[in-house]
Amino acid sequence: MGKSEGKSSNVVWHQGHVTRQMREAQNGHRAAVLWFTGLSGAGKSTLAHAVEQRLHELGARTFVIDGDNVRHGLCRDLGFVDTDRVENIRRVVEVAGLFVQAGVLTLTAFISPFRRDRAQARELLGGDFIEIFCDTPLDVCEGRDVKGLYAKARAGEIPAFTGISSPYEAPEHAELVVPTGSEPLAASVQRVMHFLGEQGLIVMGEEG
Amino acid sequence: MGKSEGKSSNVVWHQGHVTRQMREAQNGHRAAVLWFTGLSGAGKSTLAHAVEQRLHELGARTFVIDGDNVRHGLCRDLGFVDTDRVENIRRVVEVAGLFVQAGVLTLTAFISPFRRDRAQARELLGGDFIEIFCDTPLDVCEGRDVKGLYAKARAGEIPAFTGISSPYEAPEHAELVVPTGSEPLAASVQRVMHFLGEQGLIVMGEEG
Repeated sequence: MGKSEGKSSNVVWHQGHVTRQMREAQNGHRAAVLWFTGLSGAGKSTLAHAVEQRLHELGARTFVIDGDNVRHGLCRDLGFVDTDRVENIRRVVEVAGLFVQAGVLTLTAFISPFRRDRAQARELLGGDFIEIFCDTPLDVCEGRDVKGLYAKARAGEIPAFTGISSPYEAPEHAELVVPTGSEPLAASVQRVMHFLGEQGLIVMGEEG
Repeated sequence: MGKSEGKSSNVVWHQGHVTRQMREAQNGHRAAVLWFTGLSGAGKSTLAHAVEQRLHELGARTFVIDGDNVRHGLCRDLGFVDTDRVENIRRVVEVAGLFVQAGVLTLTAFISPFRRDRAQARELLGGDFIEIFCDTPLDVCEGRDVKGLYAKARAGEIPAFTGISSPYEAPEHAELVVPTGSEPLAASVQRVMHFLGEQGLIVMGEEG
């Protein structure tokens, strides 16, 4: 028992925070943010959730942050004008940063059409930011039109719809480009998993 | 292989989301929010981090959300006027809710002086909200005055300082009251851990 025991025990405890490194060691994998970007209907959310499922099966700690769980909660005070879109992404990036500190492999699925916003995310998250471009061509997305949004956008019912009346600025230096418009989902999942293994984020078993 | 295989494989994958229940099973403990409330200097952050450390040693997945990691990030656009304080707590509650969905035992350390705000947190988080009152009397907190804030507040340099020029509304039905002003930290930690075991949130070993 050292000299400083006793009244200073508060200080000793307080310094003993659980660090990100301790959590990563506990989890057996690194934490990072897999930032899925692409047009509406490109398959971002589908791919993110499928990758998460595979990671979970391998024992990883994961979480998907997408529109569904922030637009009705954390960001429900925000609309869709430019300043609100920027603030929406800012909050998502900050929350993703907290999840990384918590040791979680975090997947985000947002159109995030502007390079400057993704650049801001990259700046805030540093080496933890991994940009994954779901590269489905516009005509394929519009042909799918799962939510009927392209039809509405063409009819002028949705202002500033990405790809129709507002630009999508494709990534120029994404860490990974996935041809989500021309390969089966399982192949895209395998592509992402292989990349994560290569990067040393996870330890791949027989599939590496 | 069922009839619906093939073109509908996207749908099948998308439905196979990793649920909170799957994460809790993976982690071996339940998720919840331990909401530490009390005066400035009551020992909320110290206790939260000490409990987290103990939980981590037991193999639990944990995270502490406190002023340090939100005021400079997620909530850096907010000041300290009433509306901003309310919005600050709202965002913390929403983020805590995401961590719960991620299966994490989440600890928050905020003064959160107003009953209505804590009631809102309880409403949003439902049965996942566990209020822990760090019950250190004002004179003890002021005597400690670790950050020198009470002296400044008494000198009128900090407007609306909780306990001095703004009320602290003590919890009336907290799940747990910890006499943080009159027992050693280790005893408070043990008190919280015992409570968590009793509630079935964690499985206690030899210490139960």
